[in-house]
Amino acid sequence: MKFPFVIKTVASLVLSRKLLCHQSCTNKIKPFLILRNLYVPSSLRSQQEVPAWGSKRHKNKQKLKIQFINIMADPKIEEVLAPFRASVKEQGDIVRQLKESGAPELDLKKAVAELKTRKKILEDKELELTPVEASFDRAKMEDLLKRRFFFDQSFAIYGGITGQFDFGPMGCAMKANMLNTWRSFFILEEQMLEVDCSILTPEPVLKASGHVDRFADLMVKDEKNGECFRLDHLIKAHLEKVKTDKKTTAEVKLECEDIVIKLDGMNKEEMRVILRKFEMKAPLTNNELSDPMEFNLMFSTFIGPTGLVRGFLRPETAQGIFVNFKRLLEFNQEKLPFAAAQIGNSFRNEISPRSGLIRVREFTMAEIEHFCDPTDKSHPKFDEVRDVQVLLYSACNQMDGKAAEIVTIGKAVDDKTIANETLAYFMARIQQYMVKVGVDPKKLRFRQHMNNEMAHYACDCWDAECLTSYGWVECVGCADRSAYDLSQHTKSTGVRLVAERKLREPKTIDVVEAVANKGLVGKSFKKEAKEIMEALAKLEPSAVAEVEESLKNNGKYVLEIGANSYILTPDMLEVKRYQKTIYVEEYVPNVIEPSFGIGRIMYSIFEHNFKVRSDGGQRTYFSLPPVIAPLKCSVLPLSNNPEFVPYVRQLSRDLTGLDVSNRVDDSSGSIGRRYARTDEIAIPFGITIDFDSLKEPHTATLRERDTMGQVRIPLKEIAGVVRDLSYGKITWTDVEAKYPKFEQQETKT
Amino acid sequence: MKFPFVIKTVASLVLSRKLLCHQSCTNKIKPFLILRNLYVPSSLRSQQEVPAWGSKRHKNKQKLKIQFINIMADPKIEEVLAPFRASVKEQGDIVRQLKESGAPELDLKKAVAELKTRKKILEDKELELTPVEASFDRAKMEDLLKRRFFFDQSFAIYGGITGQFDFGPMGCAMKANMLNTWRSFFILEEQMLEVDCSILTPEPVLKASGHVDRFADLMVKDEKNGECFRLDHLIKAHLEKVKTDKKTTAEVKLECEDIVIKLDGMNKEEMRVILRKFEMKAPLTNNELSDPMEFNLMFSTFIGPTGLVRGFLRPETAQGIFVNFKRLLEFNQEKLPFAAAQIGNSFRNEISPRSGLIRVREFTMAEIEHFCDPTDKSHPKFDEVRDVQVLLYSACNQMDGKAAEIVTIGKAVDDKTIANETLAYFMARIQQYMVKVGVDPKKLRFRQHMNNEMAHYACDCWDAECLTSYGWVECVGCADRSAYDLSQHTKSTGVRLVAERKLREPKTIDVVEAVANKGLVGKSFKKEAKEIMEALAKLEPSAVAEVEESLKNNGKYVLEIGANSYILTPDMLEVKRYQKTIYVEEYVPNVIEPSFGIGRIMYSIFEHNFKVRSDGGQRTYFSLPPVIAPLKCSVLPLSNNPEFVPYVRQLSRDLTGLDVSNRVDDSSGSIGRRYARTDEIAIPFGITIDFDSLKEPHTATLRERDTMGQVRIPLKEIAGVVRDLSYGKITWTDVEAKYPKFEQQETKT
Repeated sequence: MKFPFVIKTVASLVLSRKLLCHQSCTNKIKPFLILRNLYVPSSLRSQQEVPAWGSKRHKNKQKLKIQFINIMADPKIEEVLAPFRASVKEQGDIVRQLKESGAPELDLKKAVAELKTRKKILEDKELELTPVEASFDRAKMEDLLKRRFFFDQSFAIYGGITGQFDFGPMGCAMKANMLNTWRSFFILEEQMLEVDCSILTPEPVLKASGHVDRFADLMVKDEKNGECFRLDHLIKAHLEKVKTDKKTTAEVKLECEDIVIKLDGMNKEEMRVILRKFEMKAPLTNNELSDPMEFNLMFSTFIGPTGLVRGFLRPETAQGIFVNFKRLLEFNQEKLPFAAAQIGNSFRNEISPRSGLIRVREFTMAEIEHFCDPTDKSHPKFDEVRDVQVLLYSACNQMDGKAAEIVTIGKAVDDKTIANETLAYFMARIQQYMVKVGVDPKKLRFRQHMNNEMAHYACDCWDAECLTSYGWVECVGCADRSAYDLSQHTKSTGVRLVAERKLREPKTIDVVEAVANKGLVGKSFKKEAKEIMEALAKLEPSAVAEVEESLKNNGKYVLEIGANSYILTPDMLEVKRYQKTIYVEEYVPNVIEPSFGIGRIMYSIFEHNFKVRSDGGQRTYFSLPPVIAPLKCSVLPLSNNPEFVPYVRQLSRDLTGLDVSNRVDDSSGSIGRRYARTDEIAIPFGITIDFDSLKEPHTATLRERDTMGQVRIPLKEIAGVVRDLSYGKITWTDVEAKYPKFEQQETKT
Repeated sequence: MKFPFVIKTVASLVLSRKLLCHQSCTNKIKPFLILRNLYVPSSLRSQQEVPAWGSKRHKNKQKLKIQFINIMADPKIEEVLAPFRASVKEQGDIVRQLKESGAPELDLKKAVAELKTRKKILEDKELELTPVEASFDRAKMEDLLKRRFFFDQSFAIYGGITGQFDFGPMGCAMKANMLNTWRSFFILEEQMLEVDCSILTPEPVLKASGHVDRFADLMVKDEKNGECFRLDHLIKAHLEKVKTDKKTTAEVKLECEDIVIKLDGMNKEEMRVILRKFEMKAPLTNNELSDPMEFNLMFSTFIGPTGLVRGFLRPETAQGIFVNFKRLLEFNQEKLPFAAAQIGNSFRNEISPRSGLIRVREFTMAEIEHFCDPTDKSHPKFDEVRDVQVLLYSACNQMDGKAAEIVTIGKAVDDKTIANETLAYFMARIQQYMVKVGVDPKKLRFRQHMNNEMAHYACDCWDAECLTSYGWVECVGCADRSAYDLSQHTKSTGVRLVAERKLREPKTIDVVEAVANKGLVGKSFKKEAKEIMEALAKLEPSAVAEVEESLKNNGKYVLEIGANSYILTPDMLEVKRYQKTIYVEEYVPNVIEPSFGIGRIMYSIFEHNFKVRSDGGQRTYFSLPPVIAPLKCSVLPLSNNPEFVPYVRQLSRDLTGLDVSNRVDDSSGSIGRRYARTDEIAIPFGITIDFDSLKEPHTATLRERDTMGQVRIPLKEIAGVVRDLSYGKITWTDVEAKYPKFEQQETKT
């Protein structure tokens, strides 16, 4: 090893939970494609779909599990990988040994850095050995997203701002559908308490949470024009360039490779050394660069006109829930466990955001904070998910150089891979939600944080990651955050954010109190008497003992409240000692936190559902599940014949009346061309009104997007059929079985 | 008149549209209660309810109009008011005359100020003569809102921030229901294009819209501690104090009254004079105050790490739609009219926000921008609303000292009270939405902006105002904004935000162009050639003539692009003149903008639906319509008998399966007490499982919140009945007719 490694970046250690579990965390888009060597039949996806909410099948959901069947590793690839896996395991064992023997922290950190390096090499090898999916063309998909305005850069006519996106009609409707589904799936189903809190947050709140001091990335500045660069990105890009330079020696090339692999774990000083050693300059301008500096990722502003009350745009929605804990507990009639949830926007001032929707400056999150008793993390509905299969990439497997494994939620809890039932329950529910809204279950895994990644207060943390062309992208974090958050806010405000638990049997305790002589204190201190008496009542037993001693020895006690001192004399208070029977005890609830990055899930859905028709490769579309499709149905008159108009209008009205969003496309162009256009905006069903529709018995053609199958249905039934299809009450196969097939080719009409 | 009046405050003149039409506008909470002298029977509200979306009655909505029946002025009150009305009319006529005769602006402004003063006196008189609603107790309502955490101050454990509120579970669910209803009612029904744009907005966008320069309020600062005060509020509070001081002379008292009335129309200098004349000091500290200064109401921050890109939190959502106009037009296949809509948060850094949800620093808006051809503002669905009755307080009536009047939308357009069909169509739809979500139609009026209030570019503007204990509160603005917004952004960006209209008959026009010699220009200017050729192509005919002349007379033409100059010689370009037949012409679309302040509507709904039971006045509740009630149904086991548990669970599951949000309350306490609790959080329906439920035939009690009526329904039917009630498919009367009444008293059980 060439560098004295310490596993630390400003981001990853100091506030690792926030950076590791949330939307915009900075070190998490890892281009590892671990799962690619798993074989999954292409037919799997539809079999795995969770039945739609409110459907008849819904009640039977316990029988309908997502099953990862027929998945197996390719033995040939495994043979090649074996030595790499062994190398990771060897180092993993060393790390374990060091931990057990209580080795010095620096040694441990060095060993973990080496472990990470080996893991990276293994993962790169896996990627290299796995054939990429030939069918996916990101440029083609991005063209479609832009062309049909699913989303696009904000303020483009003003030159645009990186890391900011506007959702057009289709993206917006899809997002609204995702959020409504989320609300049904989590808040309604689990009877959570939804809140909607302020975005602008005063400084003390984020000081308590740790964001003000430590929520930062490293950057360097162009000394002349002030342009900023994220330091790790800059170093990586520079070294890649050095590597490809013909003049570079083999030795330096190796060094560059080594640095790039280890960059993730470097601290500020280590990066500074590399910056200077390679004499890096600002890209484009070639100007000198500043030394590395921390840049806080929160947007700062002032609340009110004085310029004295500093505030930030919240970097996550969670804090709004924590500061309302007391109100929520009261609303829940003081009972635990309960979960609160919030859907809303958060903001992070990324230094140089790239990679589209995955790294953005403002984004929608959906967060759940499940408050529970730390001595009981069981979940009443755990049995409903016990048999759900998930793909787990445990910390253990990561240290052993093993691949991710398919296990049932029940087994993972039984063998303590997942820390507790509640955490595991949410992981199962996360997976069900993700698949329901269109994430490909073959491209979804849960990766456990390794000990060194996890914040010291967290007990366990898993990321739901989706495989995309950017690699595995963390889309949902699911962490057991222990009592950290509530304790922090209690410490900062003095407001006890606690719950009460009934004792199994009553307990007798010794009480020692300093009881004020109200009359005398009131007379002596007037206005301030109340505050003094409150302060006395709050004294801890040890402090009461001090008071007592001081009164005895010095004939007085000096009580300090803030900047004020009050001299109390023995006649003003009495120290009382007695025994009391108590039936309840206070405790700080623990928090299990599933945290969804909606934009990232949305991006994964786009990639997982982007399709190209086999006929020539020009017709692209999104096979979004109806539940999140922006519009459920199109209505197309065969031509601009005025006789079609009343039928088209009535049909559109009928559909709207049944809450089926729809769009009339009466533009010119062949039916085939118009179908292609509705396919592009992911409309799953299309109805065509033609000359036969005008005749008794009035019928129309209903077409399904993915199969392009068509049937003929009576006009008076058709809206109901589309509603049942859209809300998952019937399947297209049911429809094809019931109604006659319509044989006319799309291209002919 | 004592002061040289000019009708101007920083806020009202410079950006009057924004301040007058939107959520947080600063001069609009007028404590006038004009409508109080109208008698409306208390039974009116339920008769007027628009049928729920998706119900059978929905299709017949043309027959169901909101009718303002039996409303008439009290003749005795009118007798007293007559001289005040006459005084307003007299001054209104003077203003009209001055306008017609083209009098100097200062004279006109003085006359308008006097008109406003007289209007204020009339309105105060009306208020004085009208008995206040005895049943409404704001403190009681606020207690309920706080106690059941509908909403409460944000960050209260940190001391809180004024003007920021968190919505608790009930407020949040109600808001989500309001927004979903809005989405169905406007976006789905009218097939609008919904977008979801960035909140952080770069400076140039808001420079173009006028917000950077002119979106400000006047304030003064405490010279010592920096505390800021909104100037008009400060002056008003000070003068009220002076007035009540016994030492104040009658003359000074009169002066104070006069100033308070005229304050709304004063400018910075006038207010400064008053500030100094009355030697006002900072409240509490009694420190000296600074001179008045403008304070921009936008929250400012920096986007990205350089500190060079200034941005603001958007003060309204509208700009996001305007800057996306081209994409939206393209999405709509270049066809007009179309409407875009956006629901989202906006931010205004109020100087000293008060009055709860009505004046806040962050708030949710729902805005529609309907783009249309300025030569055709008809609306295809106008006939559907022609007979809708609305209470209009026209500019004319305001100038004539008359009260608001009930007229049909059709008549108001016919007699040109409302400028055009599209504006009128939206007004009718706004009213229908407001009533659907629970606004009392008796407390809803449309007030037209008077000429002097309206921005110069607006053709017509109406505010939907709700009567609350704060007076008439503007909740929705509905304005015809002409071509202003698109023109401003075109001017700032050079991107032509226009549409094309087909000409009735083709037109032959003369074209004059400067056509570049591509080869030579390319050779001469290399990289810059493209830009030069583009600049030449864009030249207006008059500029081309200049080029031609310069080439002829000087042998060259100096083309300036930004800071650069390029010398063009005659061989580099040729001026061509020819005729061309054109079939379309470009135009800048006009915008009709309905803009909803969701928080204000919500607050009005709370006030309009706050009820106190007649039995002692202790039991308070909200009679929210089911469509927006946070939860639709409660499920209450009679006692904690374990035999009830499976029934309660199954019922809750059945309800959830039918998308009926519900809450089980199995806490101890009598049924009566638990009903009271569910009433408080506005749950419209309650099901009680009792011992009879356990026996064949299994039945349960269904109770309705407002009437407290109870019926007995078979368990297997009950979930369906509640769904139909919740979604407005049947009424409680239907249910009472079908099922046997349950006679047991609430208090007995």
